[in-house]
Amino acid sequence: MDKEKLIIKAFLNELNGDDGAVIKNWCLSKDLFFENVHFKREWLSLEQIASKAMLVNISDAIVMNAVPRYALLGLALPKNLNENQIKDLQRGFLKTAKKFGIKIIGGDTISNEKIDISITLLSKIRKKAIYRKGLKIGHLLAFTGELGQSLKGLELLQKGGSLEAKHRFIKPKLRKDFFYKIANKVVCAMDISDGLSKDLSRLLELNQLGISWFKTLDFYELYSGEEYEILFAFEKKDKEFIEKMAQKYKLKLNIFGQAVKGKYEFRGKEHHF
Amino acid sequence: MDKEKLIIKAFLNELNGDDGAVIKNWCLSKDLFFENVHFKREWLSLEQIASKAMLVNISDAIVMNAVPRYALLGLALPKNLNENQIKDLQRGFLKTAKKFGIKIIGGDTISNEKIDISITLLSKIRKKAIYRKGLKIGHLLAFTGELGQSLKGLELLQKGGSLEAKHRFIKPKLRKDFFYKIANKVVCAMDISDGLSKDLSRLLELNQLGISWFKTLDFYELYSGEEYEILFAFEKKDKEFIEKMAQKYKLKLNIFGQAVKGKYEFRGKEHHF
Repeated sequence: MDKEKLIIKAFLNELNGDDGAVIKNWCLSKDLFFENVHFKREWLSLEQIASKAMLVNISDAIVMNAVPRYALLGLALPKNLNENQIKDLQRGFLKTAKKFGIKIIGGDTISNEKIDISITLLSKIRKKAIYRKGLKIGHLLAFTGELGQSLKGLELLQKGGSLEAKHRFIKPKLRKDFFYKIANKVVCAMDISDGLSKDLSRLLELNQLGISWFKTLDFYELYSGEEYEILFAFEKKDKEFIEKMAQKYKLKLNIFGQAVKGKYEFRGKEHHF
Repeated sequence: MDKEKLIIKAFLNELNGDDGAVIKNWCLSKDLFFENVHFKREWLSLEQIASKAMLVNISDAIVMNAVPRYALLGLALPKNLNENQIKDLQRGFLKTAKKFGIKIIGGDTISNEKIDISITLLSKIRKKAIYRKGLKIGHLLAFTGELGQSLKGLELLQKGGSLEAKHRFIKPKLRKDFFYKIANKVVCAMDISDGLSKDLSRLLELNQLGISWFKTLDFYELYSGEEYEILFAFEKKDKEFIEKMAQKYKLKLNIFGQAVKGKYEFRGKEHHF
């Protein structure tokens, strides 16, 4: 059993396992964003680091059909950061918080050897929360946008290259407006953080179902992590509406399969630096 | 300006600055508990590390007059921890959560070089929240218990000694029952995490007041951090009630001063490893 599974199993109860936990009409989510685990200092500017730390957390709230409202920041920062560097980090947090209407309400700051960020979001659930559970035989499986760029960007960085500020690996594109619009037709969803193949396997395992593929996806589509596109499912009767909304929001929609009896086994491996 | 101040200032708004942030009738708090910042592996067992990480967070909720209900765990764990070591950590989280009626509802786990823990608590506010703000001239200042043991324990550990499992540095004593009982008479409060002198200076600065001392405190009482005793204030007319409750809960109560016009300047320094 891998370590993450071991830990999840140990703490599992009826509230765990989704991108966020639902308490009354609030969604609570928490993601870590640690130096040398999620990023390297030479790859992203400090403002970009702070902004991406916020975005990967906001992504969790969106896929739960919740509107992020408040954030707590846990910041472990190296002693040698100077005032300008701290201001760069601040700018990243504050600009992204402002863009999404989030108020930073507290947190904790300590000195550390590297930049390790922990963000907790308190998000208001819209009409009803969307969970990972809820998939039934016959539901269509889809993801938003195009997958692969994040891993391609990472590979370039690892070879010493650099990326444009708007590259997905630097600044994930979140599908807030489109997803809120279709949310009442969505039966289950999660964001794609560890690669479609891995995340799909989690979704199918949880719902004890398999998939009948409509198309062949390539290596990058299957294994690129940190995409923060949305993996979701819906009933066939809503296909037309969802396709229309994708068009309206100028979004590529990939309906790649259908839930069937059976099970899906993950055969790839997660990428690590 | 020190780094913490710089950061607090950058993110400050009307909701920041207390041990927790109040949203409707909930209190949200977050404390980091990082290896080589807050503890060394040779000082505490893994179960003790997890338990203390929970306790320092629960302390924040108690001083806000809130009852901790839900926790999110952010765990960055070294790859070389084995299954038994992970179970030891789990035991610490779960036993302490159970003791205080807390449900662990989610979080995030990653591989890291050291054990870095970030906990977020969602706590239900009892009748009303208690803030750091609220001190007025004439209010009596007090702390619970005895201060100094935490720093003495730390010094012993730094010299290569070891501490009993029940030592305060290993397992802070929280004053939940007493504090909830007197809460409606408390005008402001915070826990003593950085030493009475430092924390008192924060309280007085925030309330723009000074202190008239009733007694002389020694070095350890003033400068011992991570005590998690409670620094609080109340009106003179409630002194008798509070003293009676301290007796009832077999707790030492130290009424050490009175709020006066003026300002208090912190002259000591925080202890760091």
